[in-house]
Amino acid sequence: MTEFKTVRGMRDFLPEEAKIMRYIEGKARRVAELYGYNEIITPVLEPYELLAAKAGEEVRLRMYAFKDLGERMVALRPEFTPSVARLVATTLRNEPKPFRLFCVGSLYRYDEPQQGRYREFWQSNFELMGSSKPEADAEIIMLTNSLMETVGLRNYAFKFGHIGVLRGVMGKEGLDEKVQSDAMQLMDKKQYDEALRLVKEAGVSNKCMATLRKLVELKGDNLGIIEEMKLLVKDYEEALKATENLQEILKLVQASGCKINMTIEAGFARGLEYYTGIIFEVNVPEMDKALAGGGRYDRLIELFGGEPTPAVGIAHGIDRIMLALQLQKARLKIKEEKTVIVIPVNEELKGEALKISQMLREANMPVEVEVSGRKVAKALEDANRRKMDYAIIVGEKELKEDSVVIRNLREREQKVVKIGTIVETIKGKSD
Amino acid sequence: MTEFKTVRGMRDFLPEEAKIMRYIEGKARRVAELYGYNEIITPVLEPYELLAAKAGEEVRLRMYAFKDLGERMVALRPEFTPSVARLVATTLRNEPKPFRLFCVGSLYRYDEPQQGRYREFWQSNFELMGSSKPEADAEIIMLTNSLMETVGLRNYAFKFGHIGVLRGVMGKEGLDEKVQSDAMQLMDKKQYDEALRLVKEAGVSNKCMATLRKLVELKGDNLGIIEEMKLLVKDYEEALKATENLQEILKLVQASGCKINMTIEAGFARGLEYYTGIIFEVNVPEMDKALAGGGRYDRLIELFGGEPTPAVGIAHGIDRIMLALQLQKARLKIKEEKTVIVIPVNEELKGEALKISQMLREANMPVEVEVSGRKVAKALEDANRRKMDYAIIVGEKELKEDSVVIRNLREREQKVVKIGTIVETIKGKSD
Repeated sequence: MTEFKTVRGMRDFLPEEAKIMRYIEGKARRVAELYGYNEIITPVLEPYELLAAKAGEEVRLRMYAFKDLGERMVALRPEFTPSVARLVATTLRNEPKPFRLFCVGSLYRYDEPQQGRYREFWQSNFELMGSSKPEADAEIIMLTNSLMETVGLRNYAFKFGHIGVLRGVMGKEGLDEKVQSDAMQLMDKKQYDEALRLVKEAGVSNKCMATLRKLVELKGDNLGIIEEMKLLVKDYEEALKATENLQEILKLVQASGCKINMTIEAGFARGLEYYTGIIFEVNVPEMDKALAGGGRYDRLIELFGGEPTPAVGIAHGIDRIMLALQLQKARLKIKEEKTVIVIPVNEELKGEALKISQMLREANMPVEVEVSGRKVAKALEDANRRKMDYAIIVGEKELKEDSVVIRNLREREQKVVKIGTIVETIKGKSD
Repeated sequence: MTEFKTVRGMRDFLPEEAKIMRYIEGKARRVAELYGYNEIITPVLEPYELLAAKAGEEVRLRMYAFKDLGERMVALRPEFTPSVARLVATTLRNEPKPFRLFCVGSLYRYDEPQQGRYREFWQSNFELMGSSKPEADAEIIMLTNSLMETVGLRNYAFKFGHIGVLRGVMGKEGLDEKVQSDAMQLMDKKQYDEALRLVKEAGVSNKCMATLRKLVELKGDNLGIIEEMKLLVKDYEEALKATENLQEILKLVQASGCKINMTIEAGFARGLEYYTGIIFEVNVPEMDKALAGGGRYDRLIELFGGEPTPAVGIAHGIDRIMLALQLQKARLKIKEEKTVIVIPVNEELKGEALKISQMLREANMPVEVEVSGRKVAKALEDANRRKMDYAIIVGEKELKEDSVVIRNLREREQKVVKIGTIVETIKGKSD
C-alpha cells in the first residue's frame, strides 16, 4: 500500500506546534480588539478574476487555480486584500467609514518550499479603510509592534520606505507608469543596477539619474535620515510631499510612546503593485523573509469597483512569527494547566470515574479518563511516561466514604481526599 | 466593471457572524482541553487519493479536485478524518496510544447550496484512537453534549444507533458486504422499502426479512427500547453483541450524570461506509440537517496503511450550530467590552491622543482613535450613531493638568478626569 503523505509544500502542525499557532492567532485577535478592528471571515476559495485582478504576475502565476464542477474559474486565495476589497466594494459599500477590518487564516501560493515558506501559510491581516491621514498609517505600525511585542519576540526591526519618493522623482519627467512599476519590482528584488538601467533607457535626465542613484543608497536607523531625503528631493514636489508624509507618520508613532527599532530606506520598494504611500516590513536577523509587510494603497478599492477609499493595511505571517520565536528561543506565556487522569480500579467503577471527571470539568478543570481498560499500575506508568501531574484513583473502599486517592505524580506521593475537595487539592498545589 | 461576488455556495461572515463563529470555535477548543484532546492542524489541500480512499461515492464525486502546477491530483478536504488517519498511520505511528485528537477548520463539498448548507463549511472534529472500550464511545458522546450545552443550545437531541445490529442480522445469512452497504446507504436516506427489497432480492430467509422489518421500525426515547432490541435479535449473535455494546455505552453516559434527550433507532444508518459500531447524531427540531455526527470506525486506520487501531470520533458542524443558535434565539455569553474612542480636539494633539490610547491598551482596554481628522462634534456624532460607550476628548486645557474629558455617550454626561484614572473611571462604571 502507498504511504500517504501531505501534498508537497503543505505541512501538519502537531500538538506542540498547533498550540503555538493558536497562541499567536489569539494574540492577533486580541490586538484587533484592542485597536477596534472587527473580524471578518471570507472564503478560502474565491473567483479567479477577483484574485488575479491586482496581483502582480509573480503571484498570479503561482495561484492554485482551477475550474469547479460548475465550470467556474476559481482559485485558493494567495492573500486577503482582494477579498476584503470585494466586501468593501459590495456588501459594505454604503456603510460609514472608516472601517477597521481584521482577518486570520490560511493562504496558498505555489512557491518553491524552503525554510519558513510553505505553500499553505497563515496570516493575520489588518486593514484600515477610509482615512488618508498619517495617524491611520501610524496605527497600523503601532498595532504591528503591539503584536510582535505581545507574542514575545525580542529582536525585530521595522523597515520603512515610501512609494511616493522614487515615483515622485521618476514621475516628474513623465516616465511611463509601466517602466516605473518594472523598476520598482526590480528594486524590490534589490536589483538596483538593473532598475536604474531600465529607467535610464527610458530616457530621463542625468540629474534625475543622479538623484535616484543617491536615493537607493540612502538609509538610516532614525528619523534624522529623513532630513537628508528631503534635501535630496527638494526639487521634486511629489517626492518631497511623500518624504514629509513618511516623516509625519513616523513622528506620530514616536509620539505615541511606541519604541521600535527601524531602518528607513529611500530605495525600499515592495513587490505588490498597488501600494501608493508608506510601505513597511518587520524583519528579524535570524531570517531572510519578512515577518510582516504592508503599506498604503489608496486606489485599490476603486480598482475593485468600489468608491474611492484611501486605505492602509498589513499582513503578519503567523507561521513566520512562529519560526522567529523558535529561532530566538522565546519563552512563550502559554497558559499551562495541570494534567490530570482519572483511573477506575476496576470495570465496575468506570461509571463513577466518568462521573467524577464530569464534575471536575464542570469546575473548569481539564481531566482525562483512562479508557483503555488498563489496570491501575499500567495506567500510572503511562501517566508518568507522559509527565502528567496528578492521577485520581477511583477505588471502592474510598468511594464508600465519598473519597478518592489523589496521587501527585511529580512528587510521588498520594493521599485520600473527599471528592468535593479534589479541585482545591489540585489547584491549591499549583499556586 | 463586473461586480465581484463570492463563488457560488461560499459566503462571507461579517463581524457579528464572525464573532459567533469564533465563539463556538473557542468553546470547542475549551471542550477539547477539558477532555484532554490535543489540537492538530492539517492542510486544507490534500492528495486526492487520500481523500477519495474511503469516501463514499456521494462525497467523492462532490470534492473540489484538480491538478496542481506540479501535475499532482489534489483536492480540498471534504472531512477531517482522512487527514487525521494519515497522521496516525504515519507520523504518529509509533506513539503510544490512545490518542485524543482535535481539529477545527473549513471543509469543502460541491453540494447544492441550501439553508444551513454551504460549499465551504466549518467543523470541529474529535477523535479518540486506540481504545475499543465503551467508555471511549461514552466520552465522545459526553464531550459533544458538553459542547452543545456550553455554546448555549437549549433544545437538542441525540439519535443513536449501531451499525452492528443490522449488519449482524444481514451477515448471519452470509449476505454480500456490498449489498449490506448499499442497503445501509438506502436506510441512511430513509428509503427503507428500497433497502429491504434489495436485501430480499439478494436471497435472505423470511425470518431474516421479518427481523429486519421490525428492526427498522423500532425506536424509543430511553434505554428501555434496547431490551426490546435484544429480544428481537436474540438469535443473531453478532447483532446481540452490538445491541449490548450500545446499551453499555449509553449506560456509562447515564452513569456520568450527563443528562441528554435521545432517540434510539435500531434502523438508523449513517452514510459514511467506514462505521463499524455505535453511530450518533445531534439534531434540533428547527433543522433538517444534523448539527453533529459520528461513530465508531475500527478498521479505518488500517485502510490508510496504519496499525489496526480501534477508533471513535465525531464532527460538529460549527456553522450549523450557529444557525441553530439563531433559530432558537439563544442568548450567547459573549464577553462584551466597553467601546471607547479617543478624539483629539485639533491636529496638534494627535500624538497625545495616540499616546493615551496606547496607555489604555496596555491596561488591556480596547480603544479606537479618531483617525479621519474630524472635528470633535462630527466624531461624537459618529460615535453616537455607532452606539459606542465612551469618548475620551483630548484638549489642550485639560492636558496641561494631565487630564482629559470623558464623555459617557449613553448617559450623555461628561467630566474631566486625570489621565491616570481613565481606566478605573470607565471600568468602574461597567460594574
